[in-house]
Amino acid sequence: MPYINVKITDEAVTNEQKKAIIQGCTQLMVDVLNKDPATTFVLIDEVSTDNWGIGFEQVRQLRLLASHSQ
Amino acid sequence: MPYINVKITDEAVTNEQKKAIIQGCTQLMVDVLNKDPATTFVLIDEVSTDNWGIGFEQVRQLRLLASHSQ
Amino acid sequence: MPYINVKITDEAVTNEQKKAIIQGCTQLMVDVLNKDPATTFVLIDEVSTDNWGIGFEQVRQLRLLASHSQ
Amino acid sequence: MPYINVKITDEAVTNEQKKAIIQGCTQLMVDVLNKDPATTFVLIDEVSTDNWGIGFEQVRQLRLLASHSQ
Amino acid sequence: MPYINVKITDEAVTNEQKKAIIQGCTQLMVDVLNKDPATTFVLIDEVSTDNWGIGFEQVRQLRLLASHSQ
Amino acid sequence: MPYINVKITDEAVTNEQKKAIIQGCTQLMVDVLNKDPATTFVLIDEVSTDNWGIGFEQVRQLRLLASHSQ
Repeated sequence: MPYINVKITDEAVTNEQKKAIIQGCTQLMVDVLNKDPATTFVLIDEVSTDNWGIGFEQVRQLRLLASHSQ
Repeated sequence: MPYINVKITDEAVTNEQKKAIIQGCTQLMVDVLNKDPATTFVLIDEVSTDNWGIGFEQVRQLRLLASHSQ
Repeated sequence: MPYINVKITDEAVTNEQKKAIIQGCTQLMVDVLNKDPATTFVLIDEVSTDNWGIGFEQVRQLRLLASHSQ
Repeated sequence: MPYINVKITDEAVTNEQKKAIIQGCTQLMVDVLNKDPATTFVLIDEVSTDNWGIGFEQVRQLRLLASHSQ
Repeated sequence: MPYINVKITDEAVTNEQKKAIIQGCTQLMVDVLNKDPATTFVLIDEVSTDNWGIGFEQVRQLRLLASHSQ
Repeated sequence: MPYINVKITDEAVTNEQKKAIIQGCTQLMVDVLNKDPATTFVLIDEVSTDNWGIGFEQVRQLRLLASHSQ
């Protein structure tokens, strides 16, 4: 009965990608721990790039810097 | 000083239902553990049915399958 | 398919109290939202009073102050 | 490699305030634990005042009561 | 820069299984979302079977019932 | 009424460091958002280096590699 919470930045994640994350995490629980998929939850949180910081900076700012340096 | 996080699918939860969840969880902490309501937090997360998986499937898909099979 | 995470301080919580929390939270989901108990998860985290702060203070310290002031 | 999750009510938090939270939490990890900012994550969740309860009440209701009593 | 939190019951999970969970979740983020592994965190919480409830029951109790019915 | 959850690796964190984290996070909420410390919670989770992965590796393994390369 695993519970998996995947937090990613909210950057145009497609429904196909969401399905792939749910299926991949669930399969991993089956393969590694022999868990029952029927009681395996996968929850995806899409977090605004304004609300996610790394290395003192908002991810939104890091994305801007990366696009300018190209 | 309990902290309770209730994650449910985002399916037309009413304000009355939210109040009932907050009151019920808080009362449970008072009744079972003699906690002070003034420092009991209840946070409700409403999660898109696209972003919640169970048994390899998005809940949105499970809802569709259930409605079709009726 | 709710997921409920209850965080409480690690202060001699009994097994009967844990059962009461699990049953009370699950019943609340049934009563308020008509959820299926078979896919309702309740997870209890017992947090050391050294690791929980409120009002600038560790709960351990608050407990000491409260016991001295009695 | 700390991970810090800051949950606050969704009440007109400005971008400058978000930056200050990210910078302050990251600096704290550097100062207190000598952590590397490059692998320090800060995630801010803005929670609706309908979905946050304290003392049996929604924060939205508490805000209304406070404004009326002024 | 994903953050993945895997909550499983504390039932003799081996170090090889933990490695497989970390590697599988990280690879999934690379494959599906093209994320950088260097800023992909995977955190595993092992939760006591006394502290995890499903269907009104502690998992410990469910395990006992399952073993008796065999 | 903020709630702050700080997850760090379980590597001999001292009680003084825990106090500094609690005080620093709480002060940040006061300074940046004018929050009331009396309803500001800070929870510290110390996570085993076996259970925290980054870049496909357990932190325990990364610590070993770092100590060998010195």
